[in-house]
Amino acid sequence: MNPLIEQLRAAVGAAHVLVDGDLSAYEMDWRKRAQGKALAVVRPANTQEVAAVVKLCAASGTPIVPQGGNTGMVVGSTPDASGREVVLNLGRLNRIRAIDEGNLTMTVEAGCILQVLQEKAEAAGFLFPLSLAAEGSCTIGGNLGTNAGGTQVVRYGNTRELCLGLEVVTAQGEVWDGLSGLRKDNTGYDLRNLFIGSEGTLGIITAATMKLYPLPTATLTAWAAVPSMEAAVKFLGLAHRHLGAGLTGFEVMGQFALSLVAKHMPQLRVPLYEDTPCCVLLENSDQESEAHAREQFERLLEAALEDGCATDAVVAENIAQAKALWSVREHIPLAQAQEGLNIKHDISIPVSRIPAFCAETDALLQREIPGVRLVNFGHLGDGNLHYNVQTPIDVDGAAFLRNEEARVNTLVFDQVKRFDGSISAEHGIGTLKVDKLPQYKSPVALDMMRSLKRALDPQNILNPGRVLKV
Amino acid sequence: MNPLIEQLRAAVGAAHVLVDGDLSAYEMDWRKRAQGKALAVVRPANTQEVAAVVKLCAASGTPIVPQGGNTGMVVGSTPDASGREVVLNLGRLNRIRAIDEGNLTMTVEAGCILQVLQEKAEAAGFLFPLSLAAEGSCTIGGNLGTNAGGTQVVRYGNTRELCLGLEVVTAQGEVWDGLSGLRKDNTGYDLRNLFIGSEGTLGIITAATMKLYPLPTATLTAWAAVPSMEAAVKFLGLAHRHLGAGLTGFEVMGQFALSLVAKHMPQLRVPLYEDTPCCVLLENSDQESEAHAREQFERLLEAALEDGCATDAVVAENIAQAKALWSVREHIPLAQAQEGLNIKHDISIPVSRIPAFCAETDALLQREIPGVRLVNFGHLGDGNLHYNVQTPIDVDGAAFLRNEEARVNTLVFDQVKRFDGSISAEHGIGTLKVDKLPQYKSPVALDMMRSLKRALDPQNILNPGRVLKV
Repeated sequence: MNPLIEQLRAAVGAAHVLVDGDLSAYEMDWRKRAQGKALAVVRPANTQEVAAVVKLCAASGTPIVPQGGNTGMVVGSTPDASGREVVLNLGRLNRIRAIDEGNLTMTVEAGCILQVLQEKAEAAGFLFPLSLAAEGSCTIGGNLGTNAGGTQVVRYGNTRELCLGLEVVTAQGEVWDGLSGLRKDNTGYDLRNLFIGSEGTLGIITAATMKLYPLPTATLTAWAAVPSMEAAVKFLGLAHRHLGAGLTGFEVMGQFALSLVAKHMPQLRVPLYEDTPCCVLLENSDQESEAHAREQFERLLEAALEDGCATDAVVAENIAQAKALWSVREHIPLAQAQEGLNIKHDISIPVSRIPAFCAETDALLQREIPGVRLVNFGHLGDGNLHYNVQTPIDVDGAAFLRNEEARVNTLVFDQVKRFDGSISAEHGIGTLKVDKLPQYKSPVALDMMRSLKRALDPQNILNPGRVLKV
Repeated sequence: MNPLIEQLRAAVGAAHVLVDGDLSAYEMDWRKRAQGKALAVVRPANTQEVAAVVKLCAASGTPIVPQGGNTGMVVGSTPDASGREVVLNLGRLNRIRAIDEGNLTMTVEAGCILQVLQEKAEAAGFLFPLSLAAEGSCTIGGNLGTNAGGTQVVRYGNTRELCLGLEVVTAQGEVWDGLSGLRKDNTGYDLRNLFIGSEGTLGIITAATMKLYPLPTATLTAWAAVPSMEAAVKFLGLAHRHLGAGLTGFEVMGQFALSLVAKHMPQLRVPLYEDTPCCVLLENSDQESEAHAREQFERLLEAALEDGCATDAVVAENIAQAKALWSVREHIPLAQAQEGLNIKHDISIPVSRIPAFCAETDALLQREIPGVRLVNFGHLGDGNLHYNVQTPIDVDGAAFLRNEEARVNTLVFDQVKRFDGSISAEHGIGTLKVDKLPQYKSPVALDMMRSLKRALDPQNILNPGRVLKV
């Protein structure tokens, strides 16, 4: 047995060093794209134990794969097949260390489940606005490591914008206590933001101080048919002007995406989609009252109908109706899966250029791959599209992916580059896109990234080969 | 003559390489704390010329001091006295490259004056919310380099939070085009935020893509007397709940600070300060209407009066009255200067701990230095205090500073550290605090900062000796 195993057992307790049995919950990424094999799965209880584990791994030159809820989209938190990597799972660091009501912050450990944080914040009378599909099992450490996005970014920003301070274990096993609850601090380089979104390759986030917001008094949802993607962008501009920071969601969904929900989830009622190329879903959060939020919404929808950038609209009358509208939006990925295999993209484009991007790219793909079907939906308010390519009717899905996936990715990503966009808006790079990145990121940026990686992790033991190869 | 001068003349034109005459506008910091001597002041016209200048300086190992409007507070953008440093003034890079209305962004060059950007944004129908005392002469490049704060941080964040992308010339003279207008981009490390706030020590910012917001329909100002700092913090919490993101300003001013304005600026009417330890100034920005903003304000003030966290309040009836209230706040530094010499601090503390910090630190200073007078005011919404120490009555100011400044700084900064605060909230480190920083920043953080500096600027030619010594 590798002597490191005994040392790790001494550091965190034998029960928390897993080497036998079915470890697929830790070794296989949840989309089942890659099954790895770890040297061991280590589950430390606190920051000091994390530091001890890192020091032991550093001394033996053993690579470490930090892991939260293992819900990532880019195979960034599971081990490779070598059997050499230690999975450092942070699930046991799950204490809420403090809620500071006067400072509007909470300090939490990396292994806290996102939904638990939402609930604890609400119980204290506050909103923690990060919200995404995996919230029932993802951890805040993973959210920070990948700078997760979600549905409320248009108002509250990505995970990055919600964080005021971090505690990090460095590649040398030192603990950096940067758990500041400060909203202004200009005493040197922004270490916090360097670790956020670095996918565990520069340090291991063990705790964070996150922003809280007052709970809105009312949250209303509306749904509108829009005559074109141009109209959707214009509508978004109107919504910004009418609602200001009340606009907490602005989603767009193409007709084909909605038709798949109608087809595969007949129990869900999909409104207003039959005679329009796309629909939008809006959310208005108000500090004042439901009546006020409704008035605001009605004024906005009236302006949009008058302008022509919406052709029909409904406002949910109650929470059940609002949930039903969101449920349609959230079922698109599942409906798409039921329709068959598809090629997924998580891209962003400057909002103003999205209509031209979609028109050009739709036409390009249909020209190159006759019969291809586009499942286009996403967070229009953030310029973030899930621009997915569905197998043509009567074509075998597996064969389509085998033959066309690489070409489709290249066609889409080349278009993204032409439109000054990003090939990964909210999911990250991991191992899935690590070989693509050099084609789409400037060499100057990649050189700087490599310099930073070498500076902070000279042994290259933190999640090596993820994000970038040094 | 140093052969570099000729090379620089060839690169940017002889007229833009200044070596003779009165160069104090470039060589002396505006608070007149330090008069340096430059090898030359170079004023390139565009990014390519900046890159050429950096390459020439790198080849000869010549230190570069990047400079915007030279309005910094910490002697960070003027040369030392050696005559060896080149001042790289970015004032000629002053084009607005684009305003993208659909994307709510503008792309601007580093030398643009902040006030010009505010005006151009407004002319296009948008708000660019960064606002600070030096806005008539500071540049956006300097704002980014120092991560400037200002009066609207409670709603819009610091300069960092307003920036989506950067163009940077590296220490090697390469141009990084990171002028993304994207609100989501998870393709690798956050280079943007590493450069922001690094005070020109890691790279030279030449352009940026900044966020725009819809113009508020109405902006109202109120003023209230509060019975204590605890009450002010409680009032802030109420304001967050009532106004949400409408709360765009929340300033606190101690009675002594206000009494100095009343004494030295008799033409300004200072309201409600005579029988209360402090006053607050609030701003409410609304997308809807002035009537709505006023209703909201009235409800908030009613709640605060009922709760007892305010004892009296007024809402400005018109823009002239609002300006008059802000004018009182803005004249505090000048009134303080007229009263005599004082020792300034720009600190931040978690908002919830400010009352205890002030009570303890006030008492400590009065114990240590009998007769000392505290001019305390600042951006309470951000936890940022300008906690200034005025010479006791009948004591010579110059003697007081000579004898007590170092001790007062140590007393205040030690208290800041005890309360998990920052010794520089919005002004930065420069040369003024570079020797203080190691006493108040963790060694782990300082080690990482040095590693990053060496990684990106291995020759140590970019603003050497500012922020940190390597």
